[in-house]
Amino acid sequence: VPFSQQQAEGLSHEALIRRASSLVTDSANTFLSQTTLALVDSLTQYVKAAHRLMALQKRYVSVVSKLNPEEEEAIWQVIVRQREEVSDRREECKRFETSWMNAINLSEMAAETAYNAGADQASVTARTNLQVAQAHVEQVRQLSLEAERKLAETKAEEMERKAQFASKTVDEDIPEAYLRED
Amino acid sequence: VPFSQQQAEGLSHEALIRRASSLVTDSANTFLSQTTLALVDSLTQYVKAAHRLMALQKRYVSVVSKLNPEEEEAIWQVIVRQREEVSDRREECKRFETSWMNAINLSEMAAETAYNAGADQASVTARTNLQVAQAHVEQVRQLSLEAERKLAETKAEEMERKAQFASKTVDEDIPEAYLRED
Repeated sequence: VPFSQQQAEGLSHEALIRRASSLVTDSANTFLSQTTLALVDSLTQYVKAAHRLMALQKRYVSVVSKLNPEEEEAIWQVIVRQREEVSDRREECKRFETSWMNAINLSEMAAETAYNAGADQASVTARTNLQVAQAHVEQVRQLSLEAERKLAETKAEEMERKAQFASKTVDEDIPEAYLRED
Repeated sequence: VPFSQQQAEGLSHEALIRRASSLVTDSANTFLSQTTLALVDSLTQYVKAAHRLMALQKRYVSVVSKLNPEEEEAIWQVIVRQREEVSDRREECKRFETSWMNAINLSEMAAETAYNAGADQASVTARTNLQVAQAHVEQVRQLSLEAERKLAETKAEEMERKAQFASKTVDEDIPEAYLRED
């Protein structure tokens, strides 16, 4: 293509629209990257917090019979705080999940618009980024679902143990905190 | 806000998402501006082409009785070319209309996303730009609708005149081009 023709093409509405459309996919890619990092990070933090809670709960169950009420209450307070941490992390995941979904929708629209504007390369790049982001999130989401499932199991086990404990100690003092928390 | 706090805020996921979201509204604004300029320009060119065609048709009608067949054919060719020009311009408007609608949808989504990400100023700017673009296009679209309406009227007048002409000149030579074009 001779130089003069390129110049002329550079001034056409079509060319300007094509370039502007590439800018949109670029910024949509950046936005998608930021929200993906945030969501992956928050899911990872949630998984960590959930595992820490489960470890604490296991430890509590294994030592509870050897503790005096004061020690038990102290451990119980740690568990309560960790439960709040897990709950906060879950909320954070939900917030970033919303941002991420917005970013996915924006990127899809930007990719389609770029394709319609003839900015094929920008469109392909946007679609590739979409796939990478989705795969990345999917992977971490599996870990968080697994943690969620294990938490539910732990909860069920804990309730079962509590029922046994309650039937064994009908006339003994049941720790007040235990009753309060479930 | 003390400096150190701003620094910390600058590193949070929320802050990074907010900034990336502003980049999206910026580029969506640019894309909307380019498509608006293209659409307004193509609508304006369409209106000009339509008026030129109507002027030619009026002139043809006013002088046709004084012309020899060769002269008539020559003017007729100019009208035919101008009709093609109008038709091409109309197609161009449709193409840019599609780009423009894409840009409107993208900008609306970007504005909403910016609002959700807490980038209020970016969201307000995007919404203002949307209104300006819509008002700008609306104004020129009225002119093009008017031109369209006048073209339809001219067409109707022309056909009426032709019917009179045909009834007056049943045994004379009717210019072939006239028959061909309608």
